[in-house]
Amino acid sequence: MASCSPRLLSLASRAFSSSSFSQANGVSLVQGASRGIGLEFVKQLLEKNDKGHVVATCRNPNASTGLLHLKDRFDDRLQLFPLDLTVESSIEASALSIKETYGHLNLLINVSGIFSIPDVLQRETTLNNLEKSSLMLAYEVNAVGPILVIKHMWPLLKVGSAIGTERSPAVVASLSSRVASIGNNRLGDWHSYRSSKTALNQLSKTISLEFARKKDPIISILLHPGTVDTDLTKPFQKDIPKEKLLTKEYSVQKLLHIINNVKKHDNGKFFAWDGQEIPW
Amino acid sequence: MASCSPRLLSLASRAFSSSSFSQANGVSLVQGASRGIGLEFVKQLLEKNDKGHVVATCRNPNASTGLLHLKDRFDDRLQLFPLDLTVESSIEASALSIKETYGHLNLLINVSGIFSIPDVLQRETTLNNLEKSSLMLAYEVNAVGPILVIKHMWPLLKVGSAIGTERSPAVVASLSSRVASIGNNRLGDWHSYRSSKTALNQLSKTISLEFARKKDPIISILLHPGTVDTDLTKPFQKDIPKEKLLTKEYSVQKLLHIINNVKKHDNGKFFAWDGQEIPW
Repeated sequence: MASCSPRLLSLASRAFSSSSFSQANGVSLVQGASRGIGLEFVKQLLEKNDKGHVVATCRNPNASTGLLHLKDRFDDRLQLFPLDLTVESSIEASALSIKETYGHLNLLINVSGIFSIPDVLQRETTLNNLEKSSLMLAYEVNAVGPILVIKHMWPLLKVGSAIGTERSPAVVASLSSRVASIGNNRLGDWHSYRSSKTALNQLSKTISLEFARKKDPIISILLHPGTVDTDLTKPFQKDIPKEKLLTKEYSVQKLLHIINNVKKHDNGKFFAWDGQEIPW
Repeated sequence: MASCSPRLLSLASRAFSSSSFSQANGVSLVQGASRGIGLEFVKQLLEKNDKGHVVATCRNPNASTGLLHLKDRFDDRLQLFPLDLTVESSIEASALSIKETYGHLNLLINVSGIFSIPDVLQRETTLNNLEKSSLMLAYEVNAVGPILVIKHMWPLLKVGSAIGTERSPAVVASLSSRVASIGNNRLGDWHSYRSSKTALNQLSKTISLEFARKKDPIISILLHPGTVDTDLTKPFQKDIPKEKLLTKEYSVQKLLHIINNVKKHDNGKFFAWDGQEIPW
């Protein structure tokens, strides 16, 4: 078990090289892993690298049959921890568990997010539908939660960037959405979801500047997974042309390709699943 | 007293021309008018147009000596209504008061915003300072509040765009900040303030698309007032080069020039006090 020794912290604080990311031997955290894209990230990270360790978190891992199935297959390389984005103490508890188990992190993928919950989170089609409670919930879960996860995992990522893998930088990848782009906004609507992911984009850009300023060997990026065939999009798939609907297997494969090839100069950027940069 | 007659609503629903805005004879609402930039907007709107009416709102107008002084000078053309951005019913009450008094609105200026409140709203200098309560308060006041004001004033703006002034479109101007730009973010920090204004930018862009789609004769823009010498910036002025600190008189004069010359194709845009467009 690695610990946060002064030597490692000193190694971690050096400027990172521009070598690309690889999670071989590393420890990856997938936050929001109970199903859909998050669960697929856990699966592919475990399957594609037979030495990599994965920590999967969600509110109640024991209720996720997908995670329990993977735990059966990869018992020695998969840890399941409960983490509720809206409860900061549960984020701190997960950080402590990861510190005690591994001592470091090489990759953090923030997946969880909410789009539409009947009677709770509006999928607005007009300004008249705007509800304060809906906007505030979207901000809490889609913007504040992921950033608090990064805050508490930051010390582990600093250590992780110097040990246990074949390259230097640690990577933080937060799932955003193309609809978060203000410049690309042509259709309007979905005020809560859209603006919460826009706030996440600004927060992610802001922390990437701090990582760079402090020469922390951490690259933080934003990812748009495409429109993926999951429970989240099921109610709206009739509006989506079939050729534009990606499988979760394909989307996650493309996103991992981006993560595995990210360079220092990508820090702070916003990429679609196909590698194209998305304007703010 | 004008009322929302079917004839006027019909007039209001026509596509608006590209003629420029002027508040002559019109009714302007300044939301967040107790002091600083908001109070200066009220003063200049009243002084520069001897036929224009102004509604000034803030949490407690009777506690604003500046507003009470203006009320003494312009009793017949200035109305003071209480409005607390965080209490939607108070926004609705103000909208009802304006409807009963004037029946319409020609200009809405959303000024209020919070930047830094000791022990409540962080002016973060590192990710480690991030507090959920601070982020959520910033989102509530700087993003959600102004949009709810627009929601409830929308029917009055639709009517106002067709009557009482020498041109067509009504204007909504919401005060944002250059630091809300993700593309221009070079320094990081101020996570709560920055990302809340970024969310406001996305919300404002989103509603501008609905106005355009429905051919509502309303132009919605975002404004950066510059760094203005007010109570808000006083604690931080030592970090600001003297030549970059604008007086509130000058800033508001420049912002009113933008508002008075705004065109249909400016709908949804983000302007600095000097008329330059700011990237998202």
